[in-house]
Amino acid sequence: MRVSNLFGKTLRDEPAEAEIASHRLMLRAGLISQVASGVYSYLPLAWRSLRKIEQIIREEMDAAGAQELRLPVLQPLEIWETSGRSEVLGRDMFRVQDRRERPMVMAPTHEEVLTSHVKANVNSYRDLPLILYQIQTKFRDEPRPRGGLIRVREFDMKDAYSFDADDEGLDQSYQAMMRAYGRIYERCGLSTIMVEADSGAIGGKHSHEFIAPASAGEDTIVLCDSCGYAANVERAAFAKTATPPEEPLPLEEVATPGVKTIERLASYLDIPAWKTIKAVLYVADGKMVFAAVRGDLEVNEVKLKNALGGAQLRFAAPQEVAAAGLTVGSASPIGADAAIIADDSLRLGSNFVMGSNKDGFHLRNANFPRDFDADVVTDIALVQDGYGCRVCGGVLSARRGIEVGHIFKLGTRYSEAFDCTFPDHADALRPVVMGCYGIGVGRLLAAAVEQTNDEAGMVLPESIAPYKVWLTALNVEREDVAGAADALYGDLVDAGVEVLYDDREESVGVKFNDADLLGLPIRLVVSPRNIKRDVVEARRRTGGEATLVPSGEAAEYVRSLLSVR
Amino acid sequence: MRVSNLFGKTLRDEPAEAEIASHRLMLRAGLISQVASGVYSYLPLAWRSLRKIEQIIREEMDAAGAQELRLPVLQPLEIWETSGRSEVLGRDMFRVQDRRERPMVMAPTHEEVLTSHVKANVNSYRDLPLILYQIQTKFRDEPRPRGGLIRVREFDMKDAYSFDADDEGLDQSYQAMMRAYGRIYERCGLSTIMVEADSGAIGGKHSHEFIAPASAGEDTIVLCDSCGYAANVERAAFAKTATPPEEPLPLEEVATPGVKTIERLASYLDIPAWKTIKAVLYVADGKMVFAAVRGDLEVNEVKLKNALGGAQLRFAAPQEVAAAGLTVGSASPIGADAAIIADDSLRLGSNFVMGSNKDGFHLRNANFPRDFDADVVTDIALVQDGYGCRVCGGVLSARRGIEVGHIFKLGTRYSEAFDCTFPDHADALRPVVMGCYGIGVGRLLAAAVEQTNDEAGMVLPESIAPYKVWLTALNVEREDVAGAADALYGDLVDAGVEVLYDDREESVGVKFNDADLLGLPIRLVVSPRNIKRDVVEARRRTGGEATLVPSGEAAEYVRSLLSVR
Repeated sequence: MRVSNLFGKTLRDEPAEAEIASHRLMLRAGLISQVASGVYSYLPLAWRSLRKIEQIIREEMDAAGAQELRLPVLQPLEIWETSGRSEVLGRDMFRVQDRRERPMVMAPTHEEVLTSHVKANVNSYRDLPLILYQIQTKFRDEPRPRGGLIRVREFDMKDAYSFDADDEGLDQSYQAMMRAYGRIYERCGLSTIMVEADSGAIGGKHSHEFIAPASAGEDTIVLCDSCGYAANVERAAFAKTATPPEEPLPLEEVATPGVKTIERLASYLDIPAWKTIKAVLYVADGKMVFAAVRGDLEVNEVKLKNALGGAQLRFAAPQEVAAAGLTVGSASPIGADAAIIADDSLRLGSNFVMGSNKDGFHLRNANFPRDFDADVVTDIALVQDGYGCRVCGGVLSARRGIEVGHIFKLGTRYSEAFDCTFPDHADALRPVVMGCYGIGVGRLLAAAVEQTNDEAGMVLPESIAPYKVWLTALNVEREDVAGAADALYGDLVDAGVEVLYDDREESVGVKFNDADLLGLPIRLVVSPRNIKRDVVEARRRTGGEATLVPSGEAAEYVRSLLSVR
Repeated sequence: MRVSNLFGKTLRDEPAEAEIASHRLMLRAGLISQVASGVYSYLPLAWRSLRKIEQIIREEMDAAGAQELRLPVLQPLEIWETSGRSEVLGRDMFRVQDRRERPMVMAPTHEEVLTSHVKANVNSYRDLPLILYQIQTKFRDEPRPRGGLIRVREFDMKDAYSFDADDEGLDQSYQAMMRAYGRIYERCGLSTIMVEADSGAIGGKHSHEFIAPASAGEDTIVLCDSCGYAANVERAAFAKTATPPEEPLPLEEVATPGVKTIERLASYLDIPAWKTIKAVLYVADGKMVFAAVRGDLEVNEVKLKNALGGAQLRFAAPQEVAAAGLTVGSASPIGADAAIIADDSLRLGSNFVMGSNKDGFHLRNANFPRDFDADVVTDIALVQDGYGCRVCGGVLSARRGIEVGHIFKLGTRYSEAFDCTFPDHADALRPVVMGCYGIGVGRLLAAAVEQTNDEAGMVLPESIAPYKVWLTALNVEREDVAGAADALYGDLVDAGVEVLYDDREESVGVKFNDADLLGLPIRLVVSPRNIKRDVVEARRRTGGEATLVPSGEAAEYVRSLLSVR
């Protein structure tokens, strides 16, 4: 392809709206163009990269025995009501009425419709296992689209679904997908870490995310350097430090004038934060929720939400707190008209200071569960960098990253909702056991750009670069340059090398800047000086010295540099 | 792929809802599954075929110099208001409000958004010409989805758009796309006829459709066997017969008690229908429209709509006719409070009988334009089988067919709406001249099935069949059969032949029926009898004798039968 013919211009100026590197660089290099908030067109260069990623995904899915199909975007709302997800997804799902006023949705994922197809096509245990997948456009009405292709409202996704006869089968399918995902990222040149994750609105008991470490990432994960434990902070367990044992003392009131935070409380009473109990008040499904954690910890809202059976959470407003008979800044679980969810850290200490429900006073020597009871006692605390690993006792370190894949053990949630059953060997009807597996194609490209860019531009992995070679002709208005460059371009095309030929009459600076900005793996330069010596200059985008190659051998030399031809 | 693992079961029973062959066969063969009216899932076999069609389209587009990109489904309604198409498309376009109440659409086509991208990326005549295309899912809220994949609400389409500096450039782009379309259909094994067509809601002055002749088609075209003129009936011109010249006689009233149709009028007065004027009354944009054609002709509503500048038409209700001072069954254009659109056939006769606006009476010796005037005089008549060709005087014959492609010369309609201009050689700003070019991928597959099925099932063209070979093992429970069939399957896979291996323990009848139903180009049979003779039976789905091939040579023999390997 000649750059003079290519659709999509590079921008000289920094796009003001772009905060992260991939967004900025993809706009500047003419890869994407915004149509609406979180909605982009992929111009030819981006689309070539995305198609390469798709092809890598397709090959790895096929190699894992998955079958490709295509499910529709438009779906009756009814099946989403059957699964209960119309309510769970709420406004995250685009809804549309057709001309006959039938409520439909633009599908954000495809468990519902595929489960109903599997129900119609599986008559026996012999029809299982199945792994089915598609690469298709999804729609989610994200409240806060951001970061170019990182968080968008319309995106291409590979979504796979496994159907097995039992949990052992699911384990095998899950492992097969896990391995396929590892190969996909490796082939795409992306570094990823697999972590335990929360299952969110998809449901199911177990899930893992593939996180591409990058400072611009929205996700935080923790890693144990000793044992390899890795989890999203939303999900991560950690070792809660035990505190020195004490004899329980009698509960008593203590004056704490003006003290409304744990920090102030600890300093006012000159005690460590872990000697206090922190109360955080939420409303879930219209009911007050009293979350109690040890004062040195924070509430993890995802864990809290799961402890409440997936209810939607929001902070309680001051008037709601007051209406529930609680005192802002000194709320007490004793006698509270609220669901009390206690972090299990409350069991690891004694003689705590906590709220008294009386402005200007706290209670001292509170002991759990001696002085108050909880509706649920579980882990609802948020991990932090430096906390202890619950598996091995090592130290957890936190990293930012981009979620580029998420796999779920769904179990029978959807097969039960859709009555997707099969007769087993004993002819008893059993629900199919499901898993699901997603990769966002555009986000994978953005993550690759985040991981490998430098100040001059993108540094695209060879396997997903739109072209392998940027061929630049300097002083292309000179006949000898144009002739030599045209010839080399022809040689490369004949050799099956994907090459972008910068045949524009632009300055050396513009041409080199654009080469660096797009970041194709290899740059070739044809120039008057090189022609005199009958050589071509070759350089890798990743750095290193330029090599001068005899013109006649340039195409073969380039081929030798490429690992994927 | 082993049939025992394949997702998608064949149905024994005829699907009650399917009226046409492709719909019935694709449901029965497990290719598609309906999710909502006009919304289908493509199961693995259909999806393989569709991907092959996509790839053929992609290769021909690329060979024609077109660049692939991807435009979004979700688009702000605003750009559709800028082009005026929000109103034109009305309820045919799915509309959706996002969570911030912004009105958006699910795009049925992409002129608007792409023109705005081209505006941003074309700064000079040197940036032209451009042909850009995508293969993408489109949404149209069809009032009457029908025929399986023939008329659906969600469909994959290849849509290409050309951008040229002038009309000559557009001619070249249009010709290039026309040639590419011809090659695409040929490679897909589809027989098509290119016809002149109406431009409809897309707009533009010239358009051609590619029609796949098939009795189940929704379109009717006329063809001249002499000169090759071919057009959709919506658009077709024809030679209107001149009638014997007569001296104009004075207008006079004639009693026609109870006569309200042309047929009754002609027989009552014992005159040919071409001696009468037919009035058909419509309402367009709230205004009465009086369409007048010679009595032997019918009104072509598409032509009439175009004569009215694209207004939406509907028949006038009796009370509306009366309110306009017109008499149902004897409406007269004389003094009518209506837009009068006259077919040019009125100029080809004299002394017509027409309505008098008086119940029970008509007017005799009406002459146009002596006795009444018309707001527009043009061709608004509908062609019929056997009419004369306007080009050469030959005879037009009508055929049914499926529209599998439509190409349009758009001109500057969209570039002017979006101010998509470029400085020409003289630095004067000129609007880009556009064309657009569409192929429905699923409809192409359905049309291929319509053209080549027989009573036993589909007869898929080799290039788009999901697999090339159906390998059947009879009595597969026998170890020698399973061994021989497995070995042949392995040979075929090693030879790069796409083969579907029917390894099921089913009866011979079921297995042969399914082979015929899916209609892969070649069927191979491994059976106890064949094994004894160390041969494999090979037969083409299109018919002819079975050939017995030595087992060891079967894979090579199959390869020799295939034209696309």
